[in-house]
Amino acid sequence: MALIVQKYGGTSVADIEKIKAVARRVIGTYRQGNQMVVVLSAMAGQTDRLIQLAHELCKEPDPRELDVLMATGEQVSVALFAMAVKSMGYDARSLLGFQVVIHTDALYGKARIHGVDTARVQQELDKGRIVAVAGFQGLDENGNITTLGRGGSDTTAVALAAALKADVCEIFTDVDGVYTTDPNICPKAKKLESISYEEMLEMASLGAKVLEIRSVELASKYHVPIHVRSTFTNEKGTMVMAETKDMEKIVVSGVTYNKNDARITIKGVPDRPGIASQIFQPVLEAGIIVDMIIQNPSENDRTDLTFTVPKPDFHRTMKLVRDVAEQIGAERVMGDENIAKVSIVGLGMRSHAGVAQKMFDALAKENINIIMISTSEIKISCIIEEKYTELAVRTLHTSFGLDSDPKPSD
Amino acid sequence: MALIVQKYGGTSVADIEKIKAVARRVIGTYRQGNQMVVVLSAMAGQTDRLIQLAHELCKEPDPRELDVLMATGEQVSVALFAMAVKSMGYDARSLLGFQVVIHTDALYGKARIHGVDTARVQQELDKGRIVAVAGFQGLDENGNITTLGRGGSDTTAVALAAALKADVCEIFTDVDGVYTTDPNICPKAKKLESISYEEMLEMASLGAKVLEIRSVELASKYHVPIHVRSTFTNEKGTMVMAETKDMEKIVVSGVTYNKNDARITIKGVPDRPGIASQIFQPVLEAGIIVDMIIQNPSENDRTDLTFTVPKPDFHRTMKLVRDVAEQIGAERVMGDENIAKVSIVGLGMRSHAGVAQKMFDALAKENINIIMISTSEIKISCIIEEKYTELAVRTLHTSFGLDSDPKPSD
Repeated sequence: MALIVQKYGGTSVADIEKIKAVARRVIGTYRQGNQMVVVLSAMAGQTDRLIQLAHELCKEPDPRELDVLMATGEQVSVALFAMAVKSMGYDARSLLGFQVVIHTDALYGKARIHGVDTARVQQELDKGRIVAVAGFQGLDENGNITTLGRGGSDTTAVALAAALKADVCEIFTDVDGVYTTDPNICPKAKKLESISYEEMLEMASLGAKVLEIRSVELASKYHVPIHVRSTFTNEKGTMVMAETKDMEKIVVSGVTYNKNDARITIKGVPDRPGIASQIFQPVLEAGIIVDMIIQNPSENDRTDLTFTVPKPDFHRTMKLVRDVAEQIGAERVMGDENIAKVSIVGLGMRSHAGVAQKMFDALAKENINIIMISTSEIKISCIIEEKYTELAVRTLHTSFGLDSDPKPSD
Repeated sequence: MALIVQKYGGTSVADIEKIKAVARRVIGTYRQGNQMVVVLSAMAGQTDRLIQLAHELCKEPDPRELDVLMATGEQVSVALFAMAVKSMGYDARSLLGFQVVIHTDALYGKARIHGVDTARVQQELDKGRIVAVAGFQGLDENGNITTLGRGGSDTTAVALAAALKADVCEIFTDVDGVYTTDPNICPKAKKLESISYEEMLEMASLGAKVLEIRSVELASKYHVPIHVRSTFTNEKGTMVMAETKDMEKIVVSGVTYNKNDARITIKGVPDRPGIASQIFQPVLEAGIIVDMIIQNPSENDRTDLTFTVPKPDFHRTMKLVRDVAEQIGAERVMGDENIAKVSIVGLGMRSHAGVAQKMFDALAKENINIIMISTSEIKISCIIEEKYTELAVRTLHTSFGLDSDPKPSD
């Protein structure tokens, strides 16, 4: 007998028929002798409907009251789900954030989970009940309702799995697992059987939006194995888990990309101590997040400084940087919004030499110019011209042996 | 400075504009220096929408989970209301049943309030906040959400007023007060300035559906003055309060009627001990509520037995009674669905003689035959033929001096 935490997203419980289908699926796993805790999101569309209602009322709804409003979405889902299970002849109980209790801080709209009580859930499980927990919501130390922000139900599920010492946390979604890259631009993308937390974190933050990043951090911290799988099939998906010896052998697990950043270059910066801090101070004070920074070797006491910022902050940053460039006597400022970041991620990089060289060669072979490079222990990212994004992803996918085997009919 | 509890029903908060109007009204009273606790129902239509959703899922939704679902209606209202108040520059906080806490028993769908904690509400009031409390919902001793049944928000408001020792509990509704009778059938009906709890209870149970009956019982028990008034005007409504010396002087405060009952007569019942219990046992076991019972004096050891039951139970009761009549050797069973009950209610009856006689005379003058009579300390009810209902109400209204003064233009 295993203790299984399952999470179903909004599209999986979008209407009454889908809720019934989820109930049947959960009962199926329960009947195999497992204890079941099911975390649900709001029915698809419900969250947007509530936000719209609040905005009809006023432009900037009070954050505390917005959370009280939003929390009703998941409350409706768990009540309907528990009804569905009961109408099928099995015992079920819905529990809200305040009933579990899911303890959070008081940051309305983006609260973080501090702890999860297990007594009430365990008590219901001991009675043989299927327990439905409202995702996305918690309670602060003053008894106010909080919500965890978009994707928060993943975090609820993992936090519950950690607290209950569940055997696995299954995240049901509309894709059937984690892929080596985006199948939309690379038809040879392959579903991964397993991936380490660390790799998943790099993949998630680089743009693969299968799992909410905080849920992976939490799973990593408490060693909760996550099974990412499809609501609509019975296929195995992808296990996100602590690294194993086998994983080390795989040099590259995935190729990711994003087009969210823009590049800014300051040419001819006088090379003196403290100059970088002088340049970045107004940018950071404006709350703009600077990602990659590269400073070329100095020549005639002048240097070039290049960095990336999120595209929505591009114009604001250009203005700030032009002002500071004038003050410090830099030559000129150039900007480019048409860039992309392609990355390869893999635990094996730690022990395999020559991975970066292989990446550069692969891109060069397609005449793709590398504008910037950054690396971490298990990731190499290159900034390239945006128009080459898809080509770069496909060529890296092939070069690192990630392409799926040709199908028998091919 | 007074502490005022206000309750607004579903039609008063039916849409965003109406919620804003209620917020403005509450702020107006707050600005006069009063402390405000506002109890809200679900937005009109919302409760029915949720019930429909549950019934799409299954015929008999689990009662516990139905309450979890229904409670979201009031949660939405209080969140939006608190947002509205805050957007107008005043401080407000919403509190749900579990936050107040409103303690109830575990009878899902029709729970009764056991007690109300005041600490959290008082704490918010002390900070100068307008407190919005979700009506209709509570928490049982095991931490499950309960609801109080239709009209339960009235009870929430009165219970809060009692616990907080509020100066008044104002119930805002779509009528402007309690009338001497139904203005729809008697144009001369008059709004009452005040009425005692006891009279209101008789009026409510006899068909005047202004206030939920449990809220009046609660108000009576804890001496909470209720002010019934209109959401859409600033006119004074009707005070429901402990009786005063002046009230004793008024013989009849109101005339009520209902057409909810049917009459059954058993002719020629053998008059022996225990016969009545033998007749009513199967009816009561079937869960049918018998209201008035009359047994005529015995003649030749035979008697006639007449009683009333709710119309929806008429045919079922007839069948049960015919069976038992045969067993005991009664002559025959007759039924009549076309009856009505008209009643007069008034504290003054206690000390004024001849009230019943005056009622019978008034009906006789219009050739209205009285089929059955029942009385209590402050009420006299007559069963008459249904077709005379409106005439009976108008004639009693005039006879007991309740008609409004002719308008100046008359």
